[in-house]
Amino acid sequence: MKVLLYLFIWIGLILFAGSPVEAQFSAPAIGAQVFIEPGQRKEDVEKWFRLLEESHMNVCRIRMFETHMKKKDGTWDFSIYDDAFDRAARHNIKIFATLFPATATGDVGGFKFPKSEHHLQQIAGYIHAVVVHFRDHPALQAWVLQNEPGVGALPDNSFSRKMYAEWEEQKTENPYRIPFHKESLDDYLFIRYYTTWYLHWIHDQIQQYDSIHEYHVNNHMLFVNLWQYDFPSWMPFLSHLGASIHAGWHLGYFNRNQYAMAINADCDIIRGGAAPKPFWVTELQGGNNLFSAFRPMCPTPEDIGQWVWSAVASGAKGIIFWTLNPRSTGPEAGEWSMLTYQNEPSERLTEAAKISRIISDNNIFFASAEPVTSDITILYCAESMITQNIKDMHLQDDEAGRKTGAHIKSALSYYQTLLELGLPANIIEMGNYPWKEHSPSPRLAILPDMVTIPSRYRDDLYRFVENGNKLIITGLSGFYDEYLHNVLQDSVQPLEHLLGTRVKEFKVTGSYFNIILEDPPVTLPAHLWRGEIQPLHAIPAGKYEDEVVAVRYRFKKGEVVFIPSLIGLGSWQRDNEAFAAWLKKETAGYSGSLPFVYAAHYPLVILKEMKSGQSFLTVLINTDNKKHSVVLIPKVKKTPALLTGGSVSASLKNYIVDILPDETVIIKWE
Amino acid sequence: MKVLLYLFIWIGLILFAGSPVEAQFSAPAIGAQVFIEPGQRKEDVEKWFRLLEESHMNVCRIRMFETHMKKKDGTWDFSIYDDAFDRAARHNIKIFATLFPATATGDVGGFKFPKSEHHLQQIAGYIHAVVVHFRDHPALQAWVLQNEPGVGALPDNSFSRKMYAEWEEQKTENPYRIPFHKESLDDYLFIRYYTTWYLHWIHDQIQQYDSIHEYHVNNHMLFVNLWQYDFPSWMPFLSHLGASIHAGWHLGYFNRNQYAMAINADCDIIRGGAAPKPFWVTELQGGNNLFSAFRPMCPTPEDIGQWVWSAVASGAKGIIFWTLNPRSTGPEAGEWSMLTYQNEPSERLTEAAKISRIISDNNIFFASAEPVTSDITILYCAESMITQNIKDMHLQDDEAGRKTGAHIKSALSYYQTLLELGLPANIIEMGNYPWKEHSPSPRLAILPDMVTIPSRYRDDLYRFVENGNKLIITGLSGFYDEYLHNVLQDSVQPLEHLLGTRVKEFKVTGSYFNIILEDPPVTLPAHLWRGEIQPLHAIPAGKYEDEVVAVRYRFKKGEVVFIPSLIGLGSWQRDNEAFAAWLKKETAGYSGSLPFVYAAHYPLVILKEMKSGQSFLTVLINTDNKKHSVVLIPKVKKTPALLTGGSVSASLKNYIVDILPDETVIIKWE
Amino acid sequence: MKVLLYLFIWIGLILFAGSPVEAQFSAPAIGAQVFIEPGQRKEDVEKWFRLLEESHMNVCRIRMFETHMKKKDGTWDFSIYDDAFDRAARHNIKIFATLFPATATGDVGGFKFPKSEHHLQQIAGYIHAVVVHFRDHPALQAWVLQNEPGVGALPDNSFSRKMYAEWEEQKTENPYRIPFHKESLDDYLFIRYYTTWYLHWIHDQIQQYDSIHEYHVNNHMLFVNLWQYDFPSWMPFLSHLGASIHAGWHLGYFNRNQYAMAINADCDIIRGGAAPKPFWVTELQGGNNLFSAFRPMCPTPEDIGQWVWSAVASGAKGIIFWTLNPRSTGPEAGEWSMLTYQNEPSERLTEAAKISRIISDNNIFFASAEPVTSDITILYCAESMITQNIKDMHLQDDEAGRKTGAHIKSALSYYQTLLELGLPANIIEMGNYPWKEHSPSPRLAILPDMVTIPSRYRDDLYRFVENGNKLIITGLSGFYDEYLHNVLQDSVQPLEHLLGTRVKEFKVTGSYFNIILEDPPVTLPAHLWRGEIQPLHAIPAGKYEDEVVAVRYRFKKGEVVFIPSLIGLGSWQRDNEAFAAWLKKETAGYSGSLPFVYAAHYPLVILKEMKSGQSFLTVLINTDNKKHSVVLIPKVKKTPALLTGGSVSASLKNYIVDILPDETVIIKWE
Repeated sequence: MKVLLYLFIWIGLILFAGSPVEAQFSAPAIGAQVFIEPGQRKEDVEKWFRLLEESHMNVCRIRMFETHMKKKDGTWDFSIYDDAFDRAARHNIKIFATLFPATATGDVGGFKFPKSEHHLQQIAGYIHAVVVHFRDHPALQAWVLQNEPGVGALPDNSFSRKMYAEWEEQKTENPYRIPFHKESLDDYLFIRYYTTWYLHWIHDQIQQYDSIHEYHVNNHMLFVNLWQYDFPSWMPFLSHLGASIHAGWHLGYFNRNQYAMAINADCDIIRGGAAPKPFWVTELQGGNNLFSAFRPMCPTPEDIGQWVWSAVASGAKGIIFWTLNPRSTGPEAGEWSMLTYQNEPSERLTEAAKISRIISDNNIFFASAEPVTSDITILYCAESMITQNIKDMHLQDDEAGRKTGAHIKSALSYYQTLLELGLPANIIEMGNYPWKEHSPSPRLAILPDMVTIPSRYRDDLYRFVENGNKLIITGLSGFYDEYLHNVLQDSVQPLEHLLGTRVKEFKVTGSYFNIILEDPPVTLPAHLWRGEIQPLHAIPAGKYEDEVVAVRYRFKKGEVVFIPSLIGLGSWQRDNEAFAAWLKKETAGYSGSLPFVYAAHYPLVILKEMKSGQSFLTVLINTDNKKHSVVLIPKVKKTPALLTGGSVSASLKNYIVDILPDETVIIKWE
Repeated sequence: MKVLLYLFIWIGLILFAGSPVEAQFSAPAIGAQVFIEPGQRKEDVEKWFRLLEESHMNVCRIRMFETHMKKKDGTWDFSIYDDAFDRAARHNIKIFATLFPATATGDVGGFKFPKSEHHLQQIAGYIHAVVVHFRDHPALQAWVLQNEPGVGALPDNSFSRKMYAEWEEQKTENPYRIPFHKESLDDYLFIRYYTTWYLHWIHDQIQQYDSIHEYHVNNHMLFVNLWQYDFPSWMPFLSHLGASIHAGWHLGYFNRNQYAMAINADCDIIRGGAAPKPFWVTELQGGNNLFSAFRPMCPTPEDIGQWVWSAVASGAKGIIFWTLNPRSTGPEAGEWSMLTYQNEPSERLTEAAKISRIISDNNIFFASAEPVTSDITILYCAESMITQNIKDMHLQDDEAGRKTGAHIKSALSYYQTLLELGLPANIIEMGNYPWKEHSPSPRLAILPDMVTIPSRYRDDLYRFVENGNKLIITGLSGFYDEYLHNVLQDSVQPLEHLLGTRVKEFKVTGSYFNIILEDPPVTLPAHLWRGEIQPLHAIPAGKYEDEVVAVRYRFKKGEVVFIPSLIGLGSWQRDNEAFAAWLKKETAGYSGSLPFVYAAHYPLVILKEMKSGQSFLTVLINTDNKKHSVVLIPKVKKTPALLTGGSVSASLKNYIVDILPDETVIIKWE
Repeated sequence: MKVLLYLFIWIGLILFAGSPVEAQFSAPAIGAQVFIEPGQRKEDVEKWFRLLEESHMNVCRIRMFETHMKKKDGTWDFSIYDDAFDRAARHNIKIFATLFPATATGDVGGFKFPKSEHHLQQIAGYIHAVVVHFRDHPALQAWVLQNEPGVGALPDNSFSRKMYAEWEEQKTENPYRIPFHKESLDDYLFIRYYTTWYLHWIHDQIQQYDSIHEYHVNNHMLFVNLWQYDFPSWMPFLSHLGASIHAGWHLGYFNRNQYAMAINADCDIIRGGAAPKPFWVTELQGGNNLFSAFRPMCPTPEDIGQWVWSAVASGAKGIIFWTLNPRSTGPEAGEWSMLTYQNEPSERLTEAAKISRIISDNNIFFASAEPVTSDITILYCAESMITQNIKDMHLQDDEAGRKTGAHIKSALSYYQTLLELGLPANIIEMGNYPWKEHSPSPRLAILPDMVTIPSRYRDDLYRFVENGNKLIITGLSGFYDEYLHNVLQDSVQPLEHLLGTRVKEFKVTGSYFNIILEDPPVTLPAHLWRGEIQPLHAIPAGKYEDEVVAVRYRFKKGEVVFIPSLIGLGSWQRDNEAFAAWLKKETAGYSGSLPFVYAAHYPLVILKEMKSGQSFLTVLINTDNKKHSVVLIPKVKKTPALLTGGSVSASLKNYIVDILPDETVIIKWE
């Protein structure tokens, strides 16, 4: 019977879809979480899927609560989910099904690790039941292995202790023979390992029963949790990677006018982690939060525009809002919704539908569109993030440079300034960067306050520059190795030959201080510590009073710029005008295949770009509170077509884009 | 022998008192805590009671420490308390005796719940010993069952777990079938239940030995603990209710110039909880605190005047200061006293004595005086307070609307503004309000940010308006039901027909924003969220940009005004001028039997009123830092007599009261 | 073999030293911690000791990690320490060897108490092994019994519970028979006792094997931990006392421009605790801290000058920087160093060497130099510090007067102001002050907000004044006795006859308020509480409105000034100009044998003085941000010679010293 129904649905899908399934899904999909709960009225569920379809949406996500399915006698009742899946299929909506084994009260987003061997078996039983039941449903697109991996601290239970002991045995021994040593990375590296292990285990369970559908994981709280995510170890068993991005929960490091930038950064990091596989924005804040989340927030239609276009321009293959309909009871009840309480579309859903429509109208372009970036890559390093976590004393009035987040904020300072220069950069984990790849044009890599550089990367750094590429290294980068050994006091500093320079000392200089660079002659904001340099063969490039604090060095075919002061954080905290002037000069020649760059630095006006065949797309977002007239410098000769925004388009031919506060301007160039 | 002594004392009391005991106690009594400790000199104890008598005081409170009475061998030595009781009797001082079973170190105010079955038996033994010993003493007036019930969190011990399990079994099941659900009210509702159970148990113990004297409980930290106090369940076994009010401990929500208002609110809530039985202010801060209490504070004579007259005007049958003499050792040693260290009256005691004398001089009036209020009642709801406790994420920089206290602060914003309009209101728990009572004139009830309205009240609300009364409903009122189910997404919103309106959405709009009302045309401060309305039959009454955010609806014989934005908190945070203008208009016709109202809004000048036979009393308190000339609008024709304050009384005949900063003006109208 | 080597070294020492060992060590020694770790290169270790020698340094400190020495099979390998000791000897460097038994990870500075009886035996085994091995080494000067005693809270383990129980049995009973009483000093007094017990135990272990070398303990976090240190009980088994002073860790109570003053206070307290034995500054911040310590800090050469001269002028027999070379791995890796990462001297080491050279050039003077102070002593009391710890509610916005530190900050307010008047004072624990000593000239003792005065000192206070001396008592001094009994409510206040006065009340008056003194007529800043006085025979000396708040009383041959308001804290918080004017007058006649005093109050310019034979030394330090011209009033006729600082020395003959911001001026007067 069921088989017949599915057959019918498949035929329906093919008849109504108007285009082959594959093609339909190659342009970025837009959709939303549909919350299925006991007690919902059938007509409401029907309306939700109909609304998705009417909004040009073709994908949804559903959380598969074990507690809704498993009865007290141990039998299973999938009926409310069967109903939802069938309705989804009838409305041409594909489903990301999130595995959600029974969880103790209090786990709002679900537990992250099994509590015991017995618990692990219970989870296996749940996965078996759910996967076997739904694997043949035509609406199913992907299994989400776990909702939002990522923990504050390792849970202390028998299972995690056993796993830790096993992991410890495999480790190579610390070479520094310092027996008294609390401050090692081990506890954190174990969490990183354990997360991978558990996701892999879940994957293996599913694959026993279903090897056809896609496998997905959505990461969250990225700028804090990033060190936990070992993407290179995940991607072999995932079909695509995902991001949960909620302004209310996840953007605590940012001001309101940096949210669009932060969402770009989140997407670009996930793209870098997933490559060459695709990525999705699996959760994007779609509605108002009341009591949940750290910051009260209701996205405006302008926010929705900025965020969705940011995700699309970053290459997301799909964006799923959290959430179409709100939960009704308990945590988040009545919050986060894209519908009114009358199940009518909010202005947020209307805006999302409008974008969906534009994408659908330009299906050919978007189906094969890929982001274009400069040849610049900002690198982050899990071990550096961990180091700052360990070293943070969690004092109330401490300085940002000494706290968790100093490394990633430094990286984002570069990222933001480059976007404001029209030079979208990549942002990738140190171990994931193709150091040895031979590229047609020289590449530029930036190491921003990367306090810990594991020794395994040293050779990569030397070879990279040797082969004609460029490095910018700033902040306390390279202070420790992976054993928290301070390598600067080694008889030869590991990067000494690469930098043509030795670090002499670091000195607390002030929460805010400036260093003077020679070329360009700028006064660059810096923060907390000044690193003093003893140049060997390098050329001094900047001073603080009489001390050399910046050098430039030609190493073989490449070049290194080294400024061991916190200039990323300094500009982040105060003003990035001088930083932008300096970066503009240092990045000259690294714009790569970008079709357009900015003629100047436009603060808070960011540029992302895409390419599809011989056509291009530029996405400009103005998060400033005033109008900007942005001048693009074209590297290609194309005719502009305004897809959205940009009330004053007359000057587009002269490559001038007038952009109002909060506006997103999308131009297709053909 | 003892019996003879008591007989003698009784005779003395009757001879000296000058009026029958009953009459003497019908005017508000004023007194103070007398702290009895080992090691005190008899002449000091004697002096304390003599000072009370000389200060026209006729009541005291004594804490009956088990640890002072029970000897190591298990026998009892009541001698220091016997002595104190006898001296009290000789000086015509009645005693509120506070039961205080032995407590572990650290319980400054005593434990709140038994720790085990065995502990419960120990407590029973203490109660038996003390009650049997003192029940026949002529000075005894009342047993205080427990000092200040109210806990931060439920103590985790075998007894509380047993009680919880029993309680849980009796509960009706949650109808929403959401199995995964931390966020229920249960833990809090159990505390509420358990407090009642334990007080009742104490009462039952006492009553086995003494059913003649009064039973009393003094509540504290009212604006925080209120949800724990189930007054309707208490009053059947209490003779009167009580309040502990210390500026240093309990008024953390308030600015210094709101203390008198807060004390009025505290008294009015306790009166509402006790009615129709009387209430007392069982503790009122009488002296300087040093290291104890959250805020350093020493009441001035002006404070004493404001606070005592506030309590009297709210209908308190007695006020007992904390404390006449200070403790000597340990917590609070040398603090809180109304005496100097030389056992001389402080200026605070002198001021209290002055008031006592005025009350005594107007004994006939005060003996039958009752507060007069408007027909306006502000409602609070235990479940709403609990909800905000549960939902509070306790973030450092969070918004007041998302934190514990949002509901009660919203209520107090109405309360304060009405006092400043000369419209003293009642303030009562939702479940304690006489919804079905037929009143001669229409009544007005206000539901301020009552985020959770239990379903059992819905019918009351409909019937109340149907019968010709009026409701003002603001903030997030009615967002949840008692299961934290968000009722706004039900197919029919529960109050939809009553409001002629549906709530569409809530949107974070700003810590501070304004909405525009039509009539009166005011710009009303609001906070955090804006509720957008879809009017059905209701008439739009206010806007935010183009959205309807306020409606007015005639439902059958009554009327509802509905503004689902936090206007109470908005005015509390910023300025209540517009709020007052709006409230003045909305409350027209609900002044009830008030003999006087203000002609205008006098910020920080509050009005309370009393009636005794055909005479009236007006209490005006100016907590502003400037002089005000207040114009009263009389509804009665009486001749004024100034009892205290009001240096410039000439204009009283024109109903103009000049009132200086910090001044309290008491006028009797006959 | 080893013995021969030592013999050789001894001969070398005698040949090269140029002066007998005893004489060499009688001028203040300057040195630094040498950090010995596994994996260090021999040439680096050699260079460190050579650098010390070249820097005119003659002492170092080495932490003797058990974890570096004890092998898994239980045998010992001392080789890296043997090597370091031998090199030290060859470079004429004496060693303070810090015992450092194996510690759990996380104990950055080592554990403070044994965890069990078994642990105690392990520690004994370690001490035996290390002491026996190194006791004959010629480089060894002293054993540091334990690194930095001082804990946040008592560790809860079987051993500490056993010790507590034993201690409790010996105590005399609390006379106040208040059975319910959490707030006793016991838990704190036990820590004080237990620390002494454990240090004594360590001493006894060492002495079994080595009774020839010196015994030392270095205290830290002094202004917080002071109540834990029972110096009079320690000194019988110590050779000298020590201080650890790191601006980054220990000076949280102070502004940047108070650091030099704070270091003087720390040294003076330690000198007071050690007397008549000498003291050392066993740790002084010598380098930059990054992630460790509460406050980021890198001393400038000017800081080094101020701090070292402060220690010298306070009488330190040696100063040991933390640290010559940085640790390489784990906590503090790459931080705190006086060397660059190339093992070259930093400017800080160069400055220290310069001072070392000056001392060495003036060896005859410094070998017998002793600090000269006024006849003024500021007293602190362990019980008062403990009381404020107990009473502190740890509220976020609480007032300084109610918090931990109020007593010691009050003391330091006097201390700083007196230094700025050129009247260096002593600062000593109440129980360590020679109350009964007959002095040639009258003495002045100051009790600043000494909230708890144990009853055992009462008689001392009476006798002290009776014998012609003077007391200044301010703040809440004498509010409690050692049982936290409030003595002010006793029938006779304990100090009533001494003060000719009774305290009537304390009243919260304002975070900032002023009292008016008569002579000199100043408006004195005060804080929080105003104490009101009932003079008996005393003469009113100051008012707040109409209340007497200050008195002066001639008691027998002496005099008392009593101001029971927080004037020390008030001046500390705001401005000490009026306080200085008042103190200058009150201290007239108590300059003692000081050769020089200031002609005026020079804010933030402090004066310390030394005497050696008939020669003197004045140390002036300007921590203000502007130049001062300081006028000295000479009591002796000597010829000045500028040792360092003081660019404009021409006016020295007129006793005028021009001193630039941050400058330290050292003048020898012969």
